[in-house]
Amino acid sequence: MPVRPGQSRHASDNREERARAAAALAHAAQGARVAVVSGGDPGVFAMAAAVCEEIESGPASWRALDVTIVPGITAMLAVAARIGAPLGHDFCALSLSDNLKPWELIEHRLDAAASAGFVLALYNPVSRARPWQFAAAIERLRRHLPPSTPVVFGRAVGRPHERVSIVTLDAADATQADMATLVIVGSRETRVIERPGRSPLVYTSRAVAEVSA
Amino acid sequence: MPVRPGQSRHASDNREERARAAAALAHAAQGARVAVVSGGDPGVFAMAAAVCEEIESGPASWRALDVTIVPGITAMLAVAARIGAPLGHDFCALSLSDNLKPWELIEHRLDAAASAGFVLALYNPVSRARPWQFAAAIERLRRHLPPSTPVVFGRAVGRPHERVSIVTLDAADATQADMATLVIVGSRETRVIERPGRSPLVYTSRAVAEVSA
Repeated sequence: MPVRPGQSRHASDNREERARAAAALAHAAQGARVAVVSGGDPGVFAMAAAVCEEIESGPASWRALDVTIVPGITAMLAVAARIGAPLGHDFCALSLSDNLKPWELIEHRLDAAASAGFVLALYNPVSRARPWQFAAAIERLRRHLPPSTPVVFGRAVGRPHERVSIVTLDAADATQADMATLVIVGSRETRVIERPGRSPLVYTSRAVAEVSA
Repeated sequence: MPVRPGQSRHASDNREERARAAAALAHAAQGARVAVVSGGDPGVFAMAAAVCEEIESGPASWRALDVTIVPGITAMLAVAARIGAPLGHDFCALSLSDNLKPWELIEHRLDAAASAGFVLALYNPVSRARPWQFAAAIERLRRHLPPSTPVVFGRAVGRPHERVSIVTLDAADATQADMATLVIVGSRETRVIERPGRSPLVYTSRAVAEVSA
């Protein structure tokens, strides 16, 4: 993006969220109008929570700043819209990153969500520093869900090289995901509609026939 | 919205989702270009799943139709952005309507999500035909969450008469919600930042100190 006259741009590493938030607030406290830019929705596993954390722990003057959060299309909604309506009924959004929470808690949340029949949208499935977590999560989900459960991998949806694929839970593996991938794991109510000459539709039925847990 | 030349508009009751989807597909199969309009995101508790259901169960010719789903800002993202970042970490979206699933399953999902530490976004909390469900859900959540847990009620956010309020779980009650309300119930990691002269910010910390379940 070009910088307009009077603007300055401050790039930062994707992992340094709190430092980025603190820098933005410090600039704002000095009178600048500051935009913190995130892809997707800043409120979902992104910068809005980091900015709030810094406001809470920072100087009292930061609480006087006028903060506006602009919502956006978070990755799970973009991927879901490309493929049908897999989030058409109850679902959970879960980050697989164990940088800020213990892995045991992630396993507990996977168990709770899958066994109660929620569809799962998995953010941050893989990174260079976290190579094994996604495979472990899939292994965990296989305890609760049938092998035929649809799994959707959506990469960089909305960008020029977007890629969306559908597999079954028994065929899902970590080579299909990277840092830019959002993974949706269906529930027992998630169905695939094959369409001659068109890509399949994946959707989650709004009706539940019986208690699935 | 005005009808442009060559357009026709077909209004329908909000509850007749499958009939509306079938009518849209029948028009499209006859060669019309059809838009099915939902508020928020059509993929989240809205029309996209109903359209997919009808494609699956309808005439084979409906599978040949070109269907595009346009994502949008679903209510929980709109409400979250107004108040801070309550969906900044793991969360579930759950419809409290027991029209299409048994109430026992909703209770089971409330238990599973709250005890595993997910923030909850509750869709369809109340309707004329479902007067007691929201109070029962809040009662259920009190088994798992401290009385001080933040609860956000967001009504018609983005519209002229929007209303957002924050209470604690012990003070939440059904009079605060109606059909147009989206309710966010925090987790143990959800915090309220008081700000002198400004409305409070509600956010969910990305960091979890210990297993909360």
